Amino acid sequence: MQNPLIITIGREYGSGGRQIGQAVAEKLGISFYDKKIISLAAEKSGLCSEFIENNEQRIRGGLMQNFSASAAYAGGFFSHHYLPLSESIFVSQAQVIRDIAAKESAVIVGRCADYILAGRPNTINVFIHAPIEARVKRIMELYQLDEAAALKAIATSDKERGNHYFRYTDLKWGKAQNYDICINSSLMGVDKTVEMLVDLARIEER
Amino acid sequence: MQNPLIITIGREYGSGGRQIGQAVAEKLGISFYDKKIISLAAEKSGLCSEFIENNEQRIRGGLMQNFSASAAYAGGFFSHHYLPLSESIFVSQAQVIRDIAAKESAVIVGRCADYILAGRPNTINVFIHAPIEARVKRIMELYQLDEAAALKAIATSDKERGNHYFRYTDLKWGKAQNYDICINSSLMGVDKTVEMLVDLARIEER
Repeated sequence: MQNPLIITIGREYGSGGRQIGQAVAEKLGISFYDKKIISLAAEKSGLCSEFIENNEQRIRGGLMQNFSASAAYAGGFFSHHYLPLSESIFVSQAQVIRDIAAKESAVIVGRCADYILAGRPNTINVFIHAPIEARVKRIMELYQLDEAAALKAIATSDKERGNHYFRYTDLKWGKAQNYDICINSSLMGVDKTVEMLVDLARIEER
Repeated sequence: MQNPLIITIGREYGSGGRQIGQAVAEKLGISFYDKKIISLAAEKSGLCSEFIENNEQRIRGGLMQNFSASAAYAGGFFSHHYLPLSESIFVSQAQVIRDIAAKESAVIVGRCADYILAGRPNTINVFIHAPIEARVKRIMELYQLDEAAALKAIATSDKERGNHYFRYTDLKWGKAQNYDICINSSLMGVDKTVEMLVDLARIEER
């Protein structure tokens, strides 16, 4: 049997990336996982030092450098039994993502899934962005915010997502070369972008 | 009549971006311009200070800052009659690109065309890239080079294209948000990538 198809989606806040991912999963009849679902699954799976000990060797350069830096910051003593909480959460979520990819086709939004599954066959890494005006409009409508609040929320999210991605991958968030396909969702709109990604997935599945 | 459709293509050396652009233009039955054709047209059009004087106001922030920097370097005296040659060439090529976009539908490869036409309706900005192994393979075959020479040519080109783009636009070459769509040409291969872009162009034309 062929490897299950995984589509990872990185996205700017307000670009419609999550909505696009959900619609692509529905149309392809495959599972959909976003940040929230993965966080919950990681919590449920339990977070213990044995688990992290068994899995951390599978984590590559970026994160391991970060482990060392964190350890140095904590006083120079480094052991996987003393991973800072944020790293433990990352390792646990990474395991959830690998478990999903091992057993079923799915769309996975966020959580550095592209990096965690790097090199995996039958994986399409997507990044969705949009011009700032379109993002502001979307966030204002979705969350009933005024323009200033929407702009602030976007700036905060961009910074957080960029920092999170860089912290765990050593790569730049939103750099074209890190993805298979990056799309401005305003070019064709959400529906046509979904269609294009569905077509792309079907080509890859063949 | 609707504005002519312009597809600009930025591309990594060895990604097949030029070949993809040419095939897209053929399939859509529109003109194709690459770096070489644009350079020749700019040369033919003649390069004189009146021309630059008349056009430089249309050039935006990035380049104008650069004018000032160059002028400062030259001793603090700044006049458009004393533009350095590289800037004159850029201004002249930019005019060629705007003239093309005013009169006909076309695919334009390279020359910061995305930036020069920024804000123009009915314009699709594309960036084509590929993993380093695929680029090396392509360059080795195309130019009968060994692996080391191909790697060196790619590194040189990446640096030059990145520098050129940043110099004239103040933007980062290959940053997803600067394009409407970025594609790894190895995902589907050249032919299917061409098909996808042709479909996209037809959606936009409607």
